[in-house]
Amino acid sequence: MNGDSFSAGEQIVSPAYIRQGREARRSHEQLIRLLLEKGKCPQEPWDESTIELFLQELAVMDSNNFLGNCGVGEREGRVASSMVARRHYRLIHGIGRSGDIAAVQPKAAGSSLLNKLTNSVVLNVLKIAGARTATGCFVVPMATGMSLTLCFLTLRHKRPKAKYIIWPRIDQKSCFKSMITAGYEPVVIENVLEGDELRTDLNSVESKIQELGAENILCVHSTTSCFAPRVPDRLEELAEICAKYDIPHIVNNAYGVQSSKCMHLIQQGARKGRIDAFVQSLDKNFMVPVGGAVIAGFSNSFLEEISKMYPGRASASPSLDVLITLLSLGASGYKNLLTERKEMFTYLSSELKALAEKHNERLLETVHNPISLAMSLKNLNDEGGTAITQLGSMLFTRQVSGARVVPLGTSQTVNGYAFKGFMSHSNNYPCAYLNAASAIGIKKQDVDMFIKRLDKCLRLCRKEKHLGAQTAGDLQATKEDVRELAQQLSESLQVKAEDQQLLT
Amino acid sequence: MNGDSFSAGEQIVSPAYIRQGREARRSHEQLIRLLLEKGKCPQEPWDESTIELFLQELAVMDSNNFLGNCGVGEREGRVASSMVARRHYRLIHGIGRSGDIAAVQPKAAGSSLLNKLTNSVVLNVLKIAGARTATGCFVVPMATGMSLTLCFLTLRHKRPKAKYIIWPRIDQKSCFKSMITAGYEPVVIENVLEGDELRTDLNSVESKIQELGAENILCVHSTTSCFAPRVPDRLEELAEICAKYDIPHIVNNAYGVQSSKCMHLIQQGARKGRIDAFVQSLDKNFMVPVGGAVIAGFSNSFLEEISKMYPGRASASPSLDVLITLLSLGASGYKNLLTERKEMFTYLSSELKALAEKHNERLLETVHNPISLAMSLKNLNDEGGTAITQLGSMLFTRQVSGARVVPLGTSQTVNGYAFKGFMSHSNNYPCAYLNAASAIGIKKQDVDMFIKRLDKCLRLCRKEKHLGAQTAGDLQATKEDVRELAQQLSESLQVKAEDQQLLT
Amino acid sequence: MNGDSFSAGEQIVSPAYIRQGREARRSHEQLIRLLLEKGKCPQEPWDESTIELFLQELAVMDSNNFLGNCGVGEREGRVASSMVARRHYRLIHGIGRSGDIAAVQPKAAGSSLLNKLTNSVVLNVLKIAGARTATGCFVVPMATGMSLTLCFLTLRHKRPKAKYIIWPRIDQKSCFKSMITAGYEPVVIENVLEGDELRTDLNSVESKIQELGAENILCVHSTTSCFAPRVPDRLEELAEICAKYDIPHIVNNAYGVQSSKCMHLIQQGARKGRIDAFVQSLDKNFMVPVGGAVIAGFSNSFLEEISKMYPGRASASPSLDVLITLLSLGASGYKNLLTERKEMFTYLSSELKALAEKHNERLLETVHNPISLAMSLKNLNDEGGTAITQLGSMLFTRQVSGARVVPLGTSQTVNGYAFKGFMSHSNNYPCAYLNAASAIGIKKQDVDMFIKRLDKCLRLCRKEKHLGAQTAGDLQATKEDVRELAQQLSESLQVKAEDQQLLT
Amino acid sequence: MNGDSFSAGEQIVSPAYIRQGREARRSHEQLIRLLLEKGKCPQEPWDESTIELFLQELAVMDSNNFLGNCGVGEREGRVASSMVARRHYRLIHGIGRSGDIAAVQPKAAGSSLLNKLTNSVVLNVLKIAGARTATGCFVVPMATGMSLTLCFLTLRHKRPKAKYIIWPRIDQKSCFKSMITAGYEPVVIENVLEGDELRTDLNSVESKIQELGAENILCVHSTTSCFAPRVPDRLEELAEICAKYDIPHIVNNAYGVQSSKCMHLIQQGARKGRIDAFVQSLDKNFMVPVGGAVIAGFSNSFLEEISKMYPGRASASPSLDVLITLLSLGASGYKNLLTERKEMFTYLSSELKALAEKHNERLLETVHNPISLAMSLKNLNDEGGTAITQLGSMLFTRQVSGARVVPLGTSQTVNGYAFKGFMSHSNNYPCAYLNAASAIGIKKQDVDMFIKRLDKCLRLCRKEKHLGAQTAGDLQATKEDVRELAQQLSESLQVKAEDQQLLT
Repeated sequence: MNGDSFSAGEQIVSPAYIRQGREARRSHEQLIRLLLEKGKCPQEPWDESTIELFLQELAVMDSNNFLGNCGVGEREGRVASSMVARRHYRLIHGIGRSGDIAAVQPKAAGSSLLNKLTNSVVLNVLKIAGARTATGCFVVPMATGMSLTLCFLTLRHKRPKAKYIIWPRIDQKSCFKSMITAGYEPVVIENVLEGDELRTDLNSVESKIQELGAENILCVHSTTSCFAPRVPDRLEELAEICAKYDIPHIVNNAYGVQSSKCMHLIQQGARKGRIDAFVQSLDKNFMVPVGGAVIAGFSNSFLEEISKMYPGRASASPSLDVLITLLSLGASGYKNLLTERKEMFTYLSSELKALAEKHNERLLETVHNPISLAMSLKNLNDEGGTAITQLGSMLFTRQVSGARVVPLGTSQTVNGYAFKGFMSHSNNYPCAYLNAASAIGIKKQDVDMFIKRLDKCLRLCRKEKHLGAQTAGDLQATKEDVRELAQQLSESLQVKAEDQQLLT
Repeated sequence: MNGDSFSAGEQIVSPAYIRQGREARRSHEQLIRLLLEKGKCPQEPWDESTIELFLQELAVMDSNNFLGNCGVGEREGRVASSMVARRHYRLIHGIGRSGDIAAVQPKAAGSSLLNKLTNSVVLNVLKIAGARTATGCFVVPMATGMSLTLCFLTLRHKRPKAKYIIWPRIDQKSCFKSMITAGYEPVVIENVLEGDELRTDLNSVESKIQELGAENILCVHSTTSCFAPRVPDRLEELAEICAKYDIPHIVNNAYGVQSSKCMHLIQQGARKGRIDAFVQSLDKNFMVPVGGAVIAGFSNSFLEEISKMYPGRASASPSLDVLITLLSLGASGYKNLLTERKEMFTYLSSELKALAEKHNERLLETVHNPISLAMSLKNLNDEGGTAITQLGSMLFTRQVSGARVVPLGTSQTVNGYAFKGFMSHSNNYPCAYLNAASAIGIKKQDVDMFIKRLDKCLRLCRKEKHLGAQTAGDLQATKEDVRELAQQLSESLQVKAEDQQLLT
Repeated sequence: MNGDSFSAGEQIVSPAYIRQGREARRSHEQLIRLLLEKGKCPQEPWDESTIELFLQELAVMDSNNFLGNCGVGEREGRVASSMVARRHYRLIHGIGRSGDIAAVQPKAAGSSLLNKLTNSVVLNVLKIAGARTATGCFVVPMATGMSLTLCFLTLRHKRPKAKYIIWPRIDQKSCFKSMITAGYEPVVIENVLEGDELRTDLNSVESKIQELGAENILCVHSTTSCFAPRVPDRLEELAEICAKYDIPHIVNNAYGVQSSKCMHLIQQGARKGRIDAFVQSLDKNFMVPVGGAVIAGFSNSFLEEISKMYPGRASASPSLDVLITLLSLGASGYKNLLTERKEMFTYLSSELKALAEKHNERLLETVHNPISLAMSLKNLNDEGGTAITQLGSMLFTRQVSGARVVPLGTSQTVNGYAFKGFMSHSNNYPCAYLNAASAIGIKKQDVDMFIKRLDKCLRLCRKEKHLGAQTAGDLQATKEDVRELAQQLSESLQVKAEDQQLLT
Repeated sequence: MNGDSFSAGEQIVSPAYIRQGREARRSHEQLIRLLLEKGKCPQEPWDESTIELFLQELAVMDSNNFLGNCGVGEREGRVASSMVARRHYRLIHGIGRSGDIAAVQPKAAGSSLLNKLTNSVVLNVLKIAGARTATGCFVVPMATGMSLTLCFLTLRHKRPKAKYIIWPRIDQKSCFKSMITAGYEPVVIENVLEGDELRTDLNSVESKIQELGAENILCVHSTTSCFAPRVPDRLEELAEICAKYDIPHIVNNAYGVQSSKCMHLIQQGARKGRIDAFVQSLDKNFMVPVGGAVIAGFSNSFLEEISKMYPGRASASPSLDVLITLLSLGASGYKNLLTERKEMFTYLSSELKALAEKHNERLLETVHNPISLAMSLKNLNDEGGTAITQLGSMLFTRQVSGARVVPLGTSQTVNGYAFKGFMSHSNNYPCAYLNAASAIGIKKQDVDMFIKRLDKCLRLCRKEKHLGAQTAGDLQATKEDVRELAQQLSESLQVKAEDQQLLT
């Protein structure tokens, strides 16, 4: 409502009340103004009503919402379904222009503002999270892998002779594929075992560079966040090597924003050596739906080159999600989530350690991994591979998600490359294990239920194995076995009622 | 509600009424069952309530919505903002897995169903639109350009020696960039002028293939939908050439689904020769927000290779949008939209022709272009380039969107390639012109307002030009001039009230 | 966004685009300003986006949405569920104050504006609908019956001696109860039969007044909209009688706004005689959910007395619904609905007439009833009462809603008053019949399906009756009978597939 | 989705995943089944997704959502605006039938279930809150006052001779008006002062009954929740008197559900004597929008009489709000709210006591009032009445809502009855005071801000008064005065920035 509307309102309702209402409106406007002026994540959370007000303001600035618009182009932001229009807050034109995903659209001032602001707010949060000297970033509606591909494709134009990408092994398909899709040959650097940890083999990296010739190498492609017992790459040293040989360095920071350690590694790498870009998932770090990533870096000219590489407009949906999320959390809310995650990591560690010992296993010592943990499964594995797989599916039917069992000796061929010991980041890791992670948003309840259910599954696995061998004298145990096996049967039909009670 | 709930309901409310209600529920379930069984776009539109019911059913099947789930992975589909969760109907896990964008996710049966169904329904609609023998398609959350890039990157692995892409010129940046980004050298084939039309130079294509050697060519990259006076490529003949030389053929069908002519060209090309994939925009053809495309083809094995090339999961947002849209339209509704578009094209043609003649210009004769029209701007152009640009901005401030003015002699360098006469698809098209298109969803009101406003703008342009030269005797005209110029001034401050009345 | 925000936006996105966007925003604001200044239903429909913008503006003016509010009262507009807050657009404070349902709330300027504007817009629409000289109205969150009760309770204070209400019989429970609840004794005036029509017995009314004494009569309580063969009361004459004897006159205009005839009767009554208030349902006239009514009149002082009679605040929900609805329709849209209804009435009449003749029944001639029709059911009735009831339930299970069968000779006691021939507005109407109405929002499809299903049901009823009597020679008919009876059986289990196809 | 749909789904996605999804769906269904079977508030909160699923299930059972419905009645639940349909979850038919607000509607099985369930769940919560032996209740879409009126109107039919209602004075307009509107003469029983408290004068009540004659008295109308220094009526003794004289007893329990003390009084009253019905506000007790109340009691036959008194259908909106709210809180969540409220009451008491002493006032001792507190304003009042009023408006502009200042000696005439000392429940309470309450949903932040702002306002009031009288020697104080007065000026223009920071 503008001034005239307020005046008209004063004729209907007491001017004093309208004045109070108008004053209240100003508080919302103030927040919006600050956001536009500073481009930073607000310290405190915004109300849903302020966010909606803001999105509506943006939407009315897009031509598809002009009351008097007539459209004779091939792309007019018309929407057939009102359900669809609503769920996008009527922001239909996406982001970017055919030449540049970061460009402003004349037809869509509101969507353009959304895009620019989101990038600015996300950059602010990346800095808060630890990448203090990052100079720019932009959100892309693509997963981490495809975003890495885009980085590699951009480097191609700068390094026409290059054929190889140096890649310290990490057994996750999409980051391997990101190189294949871009048309490069990954040069796999096996990790070295230090205690229980798998760490970057810096000597191999350097000797491989010398062997292949720096100009034939597109870049080093390193990783921070990963499943234990692998730990984040030695970014600082890798960055120094890259600087020394003048080789670009792209960091896969998939879910590393949530960990101050990962962010610190990136910050140090950039300070001491060379990091051209670091890429992170939106969903894994900001609790939004799958489908977006942030490409960030320490040099805006390279970032601009990447953004100009994306051919065509793009979905604004991931940008919208992350903007809404950060406004509704505020910087303080996001920091709280980071703190809680760290606390839950400690809690999960100690609980898992206790459970492991109870079952005669041990929590692997992986102090350099700030997010993921691994517990050995030696006893299960002795029985042969199937017990491990069975444990995985027992957890699955008990609605434990994200726990990952890694048996020994699995081989897999990905895009023609054969990996021994696939999933374990190593040709022959000493033991089978189970992974559990403390990721952003995890609750104490998640940990408690997980430990409880894992405990039960491990007991059931053991029971099954020993059942045949039991003597008649061991009656009490047998009774319990029968009870538990009956339970297991009933559970395979239906998630147990007692769990239900705990959970709801 | 299950049977027990209905029984409980009968204790509260009369059994006869509950039975009637249950019966009614069955009608919704019936529609859902048919969709799942047939995988086709329903003939008749679905109610919003059925669509919401269906989406909720899908959502409860995803692990992030399990009431008793505990998550210890790095990606658990947690959502920080309830606004975000709601706008995605709580479908958070996106589509695909790290290895394949078409793969099923164990954690997300609902999202997986959504993905598969959407592809199936969209394929059905592509067939209805004319690609009768298409065998598969999949929705990607990327614009047309990036989707073309993905096709090229997939071909790379099949044609390791190739360096070139044969590309009949079309002056649109993202499709040019799609080749650059993929790392290929576009071989630009200039169009030939036939009457007013710019058409594919088949001889040049063939001789270029012979000159470069087929094995050095990644593919032919042709275009259907385009701005007049360019017309769709001669797909049938291009497909035959591709078959003859065993060269892949990728078709940019950006907004061609809405035109039976474009779809017919593709169908004929596939029948007579070779088409490996055709790519179309979701927003331009299905009236959804910007950000998705469909990659379709006549061979599922190639499509699978492409889907496996996408590294990582992807946003389900474009899939969700297009599924909601097609369910809410039904096949009948979509066909109606196609019919209306065609009718509006005829109407726009005749109105624009009449207007052109009134202003001593002419509608270019481009019978092969079923969507876009061009009207000459000879008189304006005689004045020098600025008048044309000014016309563009006059239309912009009058909230005419999508009308595109093309002056003569614009040169532009895109990614190092210099284009003479950029925007006109030709080094030296005979005249400047203005484009207008009849795209899906256009209304008679759009055409009428456009003609009215264009008429006024053209008159104003002419007035301005002649104003100085007028004699004192031409008083009546001058008065009107003054009035119109005053109006123009006032319009630059505010969209005219009279238009407003027409529009609202 | 205020001026500062727009300036900040210009630093991010091109000033020209921001200017265009700001201009576009002004169009929405303009509509809001006009609404506030004129207080009339806008001529043309508002976009959903404008309505939402407006409601959000109202909401931020209420204290529960103040960003810095602290509440230490007993009613602070706090909402526990965000689902609830959203569905009310965060307008929580309801309408009115403890003293007056029309009063302005200091805590809630936005809700107060909503309340005042709604009343103003509804009054405007009542005038458009025909009550041209109405001077005021207000929406109450109570059904028509309870609203009538409130009118009677208000009159009590003006007529302390009164015990009776004169009430031309209409067999609808809630309007009868409205008098009982208010504590008055209804004096039932039986209708007179004129042709097929049941009309007001003016002589009885006047003689009853004389008999009881005007000062003992609280008011005359007349009715416009009603089921045929009853027709609207003779309002003009009743109003004249009321004026003559100085007796208040309250009109139950339940669903009469949709009919120009009903509204004309009220307008004429007020012009020629006395009408103190007329009450109409929101849901039946404005296509909103059940639960609101409008109390309107020709004297604001009496209306104010009524509004001050409502003790306490009240739900804003019905006001919100009707305001959203009228803004989204516009005056033009509402008028279109009225026109369509009238056309459908004509169509329903002719179709029902034809069907009646086919089945050897007749459409009763009730020219004074502009909404409801009645078709005789003589043949069915001859069979005894059960056939009629069965027809009703056959229609019900076939998802025909609103068709009402009226057998002969039903007696019912309501609050101690015995009614002979209940439902037929008469002690002994000559025949049983079936009612069907053409109410606002009805579609041709409703009429067609109704006629089709009724036809089938009537045939089935007849078949059943004659089945036993059929001779062996009548083989062909028997086959059909069997088929139809089988069908009937299957239908009782499931609504027929063929109907489904027609409907969806 | 039914079994067939799941089977079809298994063809598309792995059967194991579909099974898991189906299992998950069962958890939601389980909750729904339990609700329907038990009719109780679930112990634990429901997810939004379960609530939405449930509401959608209800909605599809209503005829307006039947896919194949055809409607030829006068009320078909058609909705013109899809915004309106959505906000009511497509539940359009309201609750009740013309004869009874608790009756089941044949056309609307879903809405009928909603209505019945809501009443059942609310009854369960009333019991939990302390009315352990309550036997029934129903939600009405009317404020507390109008609901009381409905109770009185129902009693009229049982006590035709009655003219009076015995009413221990409470200065709140709507409960006074509830009697006037029903047509009765309130017999005001002045309260007695005990310490600081105003309590029921039981002797007066009994002697008044004897004076007027029991049969001439409709009922005793008592009050629990009220502003201090009045305290809840002595319900137990009143109930005993009512039993003794066989007089109905209606309790206004407006916001008493939130206080175990108020509920205990009702429970004791019913146990020891007579309570016919107790009425409470929905918004004040359950944190929903204004507009509904619950009428509850210990005898279902009387409750049924009341529900049959409401003429016509009614809005389902308040029922929907309270059901959503209670499901989303769960019994545990509601109990937590009650506990927090109590804790905040203690906190507010101690803070307000401290503040009072600092300003040389005192917190009135009103131990029997569990919700509202009063702090004396003797010093302000000495200055004359305007200072008190000014304090009120200072608090208002500082966005303190609900704080109520009560000056001495205000007289007001309500519906012809003159009240001395209006607002203070007493003809001549000893001092002016300010009320603050700890109502359900209050946060510590509310209390802290209130105390801070009140402190500042009190200081400003004092400063103003003394400013003229100050000596030159008192320089330091004067400086501060100037600063504060300047601040006050600036505040009247804009709520202070520093507050804003605290609040947001």
